[in-house]
Amino acid sequence: MGTTCGLKIDPLYRYVRALVICFILLPCIQLSLGAKIRHFKWEVEYKYWSPDCIENIVMAINGQFPGPTIRAKVGDTISVELTNKLSTEGVVIHWHGIRQIGTPWADGTASISQCAINPGETYNYRFKVDKPGTYFYHGHLGMQRSAGLYGSLIVDLAEGEKEPFYYDGELNLLLSDWWHKNTHDQEIGLFTNPFRWVGESQSLLINGRGQYNCSLAAKFSSNTSISQCKLRGTEQCAPKILHVLPNKTYRLRLASATSLASLSLAIGNHKMLVVEADGNYVQPFEVDDLDIYSGESYSVLLTTNQDPSNNYWLSIGVRGRLPQTPQGLTILNYHPNSASKLPISAPPVTPVWNDYNHSKAFTNKILALMGTPKPPINHDRRIILLNTQNKIDGYIKWALNNVSLVLPPTPYLGSIKYGLKNAFDQKNPPENFDSINYDVTKPPVNPNSTYGNGVYMLGFNTTVDVILQNANALSANVSEIHPWHLHGHDFWVLGYGDGKFSADKDEKKLNLKNPPLRNSAIIFPYGWTALRFVADNPGVWAFHCHIEPHLHMGMGVIFAEGVDRLSTIPNEGLTCGLTGKMFSGQKN
Amino acid sequence: MGTTCGLKIDPLYRYVRALVICFILLPCIQLSLGAKIRHFKWEVEYKYWSPDCIENIVMAINGQFPGPTIRAKVGDTISVELTNKLSTEGVVIHWHGIRQIGTPWADGTASISQCAINPGETYNYRFKVDKPGTYFYHGHLGMQRSAGLYGSLIVDLAEGEKEPFYYDGELNLLLSDWWHKNTHDQEIGLFTNPFRWVGESQSLLINGRGQYNCSLAAKFSSNTSISQCKLRGTEQCAPKILHVLPNKTYRLRLASATSLASLSLAIGNHKMLVVEADGNYVQPFEVDDLDIYSGESYSVLLTTNQDPSNNYWLSIGVRGRLPQTPQGLTILNYHPNSASKLPISAPPVTPVWNDYNHSKAFTNKILALMGTPKPPINHDRRIILLNTQNKIDGYIKWALNNVSLVLPPTPYLGSIKYGLKNAFDQKNPPENFDSINYDVTKPPVNPNSTYGNGVYMLGFNTTVDVILQNANALSANVSEIHPWHLHGHDFWVLGYGDGKFSADKDEKKLNLKNPPLRNSAIIFPYGWTALRFVADNPGVWAFHCHIEPHLHMGMGVIFAEGVDRLSTIPNEGLTCGLTGKMFSGQKN
Repeated sequence: MGTTCGLKIDPLYRYVRALVICFILLPCIQLSLGAKIRHFKWEVEYKYWSPDCIENIVMAINGQFPGPTIRAKVGDTISVELTNKLSTEGVVIHWHGIRQIGTPWADGTASISQCAINPGETYNYRFKVDKPGTYFYHGHLGMQRSAGLYGSLIVDLAEGEKEPFYYDGELNLLLSDWWHKNTHDQEIGLFTNPFRWVGESQSLLINGRGQYNCSLAAKFSSNTSISQCKLRGTEQCAPKILHVLPNKTYRLRLASATSLASLSLAIGNHKMLVVEADGNYVQPFEVDDLDIYSGESYSVLLTTNQDPSNNYWLSIGVRGRLPQTPQGLTILNYHPNSASKLPISAPPVTPVWNDYNHSKAFTNKILALMGTPKPPINHDRRIILLNTQNKIDGYIKWALNNVSLVLPPTPYLGSIKYGLKNAFDQKNPPENFDSINYDVTKPPVNPNSTYGNGVYMLGFNTTVDVILQNANALSANVSEIHPWHLHGHDFWVLGYGDGKFSADKDEKKLNLKNPPLRNSAIIFPYGWTALRFVADNPGVWAFHCHIEPHLHMGMGVIFAEGVDRLSTIPNEGLTCGLTGKMFSGQKN
Repeated sequence: MGTTCGLKIDPLYRYVRALVICFILLPCIQLSLGAKIRHFKWEVEYKYWSPDCIENIVMAINGQFPGPTIRAKVGDTISVELTNKLSTEGVVIHWHGIRQIGTPWADGTASISQCAINPGETYNYRFKVDKPGTYFYHGHLGMQRSAGLYGSLIVDLAEGEKEPFYYDGELNLLLSDWWHKNTHDQEIGLFTNPFRWVGESQSLLINGRGQYNCSLAAKFSSNTSISQCKLRGTEQCAPKILHVLPNKTYRLRLASATSLASLSLAIGNHKMLVVEADGNYVQPFEVDDLDIYSGESYSVLLTTNQDPSNNYWLSIGVRGRLPQTPQGLTILNYHPNSASKLPISAPPVTPVWNDYNHSKAFTNKILALMGTPKPPINHDRRIILLNTQNKIDGYIKWALNNVSLVLPPTPYLGSIKYGLKNAFDQKNPPENFDSINYDVTKPPVNPNSTYGNGVYMLGFNTTVDVILQNANALSANVSEIHPWHLHGHDFWVLGYGDGKFSADKDEKKLNLKNPPLRNSAIIFPYGWTALRFVADNPGVWAFHCHIEPHLHMGMGVIFAEGVDRLSTIPNEGLTCGLTGKMFSGQKN
């Protein structure tokens, strides 16, 4: 998989040369102490696949769906040579949860950190994984994540390091939702007036596998029209059975790449101990079911302490939206039971979709494990972002402080680095909304909604608070959950509250003692969420709702910090837009 | 539409400045003598549309399908600022039939003459139209032509010039075929093993309009399951009625942008006089029906000399493939009849699909009008291209002399101009096949089929003959029609023959007296077609089967000539692949 210093050491000459290179270059010295370059050659292309037993088209990597799992150790360098084998579409891959310290051009965000990779071309993503945890990767252009461009990325501790908890084995679950309608068609609907919505997904997938035309648990259903699945186990849609031994502890690594769905995960008869969230340790707490929103990851410990003569369900179901998608299911298979032995009772019932108190109770339990870095006591700047659904020229959009994000053709990283002022709107987007007069419980009146591609320029090393303020959507009495994800950083989640954030009342309730570090946080309906981070990672970073259609309808902002500190940006990611013209000697 | 010298002349100062500019710059002097710059701003995006009364998605220009008609005069400069408003796909537009003398970078062929225009970006196509005629434009990346990216381009004579025939009015018909299956899905099927073929089109379109779930002529059909269309005329699928006055002569401009179908066009009770083919005048000849293959254009004169109390059908039907698509229909509406008055009899019957003698008879009637430039008597080089259907690694491909074309990520025009030898295979593709031993009547045995992206490098100003040799496809007793189209040139069609071309026997039969000048020519099943052109247009030019899936399965070659004579290539079309890296200072 990898070679020390990226060199194959064969004859003596090469050995000596490698030694010289290794001891001159600092990164190589580090690498020579156990870390590796993990090199991958990937090709992205469309492929016929049956993720939920119905044949469709997926975006595959090296012919696989989901893409290959990357497994590395802290300190390793991941090198992915990504070749675009699509016919007409660009492609990028974002390494979700990896902060890309020192390598902002490897963040894999089209129009932000790089030009999309053109058909036939190869881009080399090369970055260091500096923190253990459960991550994943996915497309970050158009609806390519919904099209199936995702996979797991797991970073183990460095050699000799120990996790703050014990487990005997691991199970890795990547969760997603799946539509039968082509993602190109879905996307066109978003940009049409009147708006056309694809509706809820047909299936939920666990490791890319679901069942649409049958149910693994049909026998337990009162609905007799659902047929019991008859799968041999070799089908692309056959569930990935979770094989376990009795009386052992397993680490379940969970990550959600859903396009839309917020999920609840439960395992029949078993409790789960939550120990990690988004690549950060949390104070362990026990749950019967776990909420996981798009863009989040968790590790939970599962002890196989139930009757070993039975198998048990693992189920995922939709939260936060009236569910019209059947639960996703697989089987926890106690050895030596047959994997085809069905559990003796029905799968766990997903909590009622709009029981937000249940969700809030879960979310509020997530606190940093002792030893986690603490946030600075004070913030230098506070940006309050009002989340509204708006109409602009008749088109439905999402907006922050009435600005709906449209990405420019020239990636910000290059245009900021090279001072190309025509590349995007140079005005700072609004820091706040009319918080005195705006009623977050009423549909927005959208007086001055606009498109924008401006950037929040953050002072380097300053401490930034973001208050995400939820509000009513266009329809009366509707306020949706939005899972926000920040690139390039973890942030501290200082707190959640209901209604409009009040600096007077709510400030003092913020948790500065043990707030969890995360890269994703939700806002509850009509509520607010307070985040803090230090702008210490030179680059340009997206901060956006991780629901893919919401992002494409404008629900995101851009943060830039310390770009002038980057000595160089690899030009291979800048051969488009004004940076492309700059390099080819044209006028901007 | 246009402004002299591209300047708006308002106050005196501007007027004086414009005068100075006009009289200093030669092109402006030319332009000031009547020619214009015709400026267009176009945006390409997907749009819901019902081309055949079934809602689907089309690739629209400025919200229109088909795209806007360009109408210009000889000597005018067309300037199209094309902005890509697609989300993930690149786009280009090829100006089919325009030779692009001096502007090879405006030919609109992705990977050949330019990098595809990235989402959000704008490319300025600027080229002169130097020859009157009936042309069209279309996408030249992936299956974007099939997706509906096409429109008409008509070049009128310069002021004061006269056509060699008289007509009172004009009717413009752009013909195409239409599938209900998404073109992305269609394309993936082509690159799948086992091969998946979309099958015949659902509808034929006349000016982007067809009827799938009804027929305009159902009343005349013996099939009672077909319902008579009830269209108000305002629907996107309502036929474009051809309004005519009795006893007049009309020029019907016909162009075929079909993805697959070869068509026959006929008008009930009327004869047509063919006067133009691919922007070149031909010796007028009369027909009852006209064959038109993908990529071809014709003008025919129609005299409205039939009973003026009736209306008449104009119909198009499929040739060369077992037709499974209903005829496309519209109505020739004699004034003052109501347009909704149906003709008194059934639409003209399309000749039997495989009556190749009928097609050959038509094709052999096409001869140059006196005064058309004649071909050089001798050729400097003869390239014989055996057309075969092949299997490479189990995938079905089309190949020329056993090489199946794959386009490289770096456009040839830039890589040849800048000597980037790694951009494509530097070996000349084969000039011939084993013509002694190869049996064109048997399925190919494919001994050494390969992918290739090599280029035929043509000596500047040399005379090149191409013999297109048809053969049996993979299935026994199948040889398809292929309409070949050359970019950057018209060629003389020296002749057609059956069986294997024999220099001894067939050479003397070639027509050097009055061969038609064209940019497209077909090869009949098991036959050959001999073409001649002079390599006098500096640039890199595609020569390919105009059936879109065939091209994508490798049925094309590349000709390059005089690229060193180009003093400059606008860099805006070269910001991809190795040229992109070259400009940004990276290693090749």
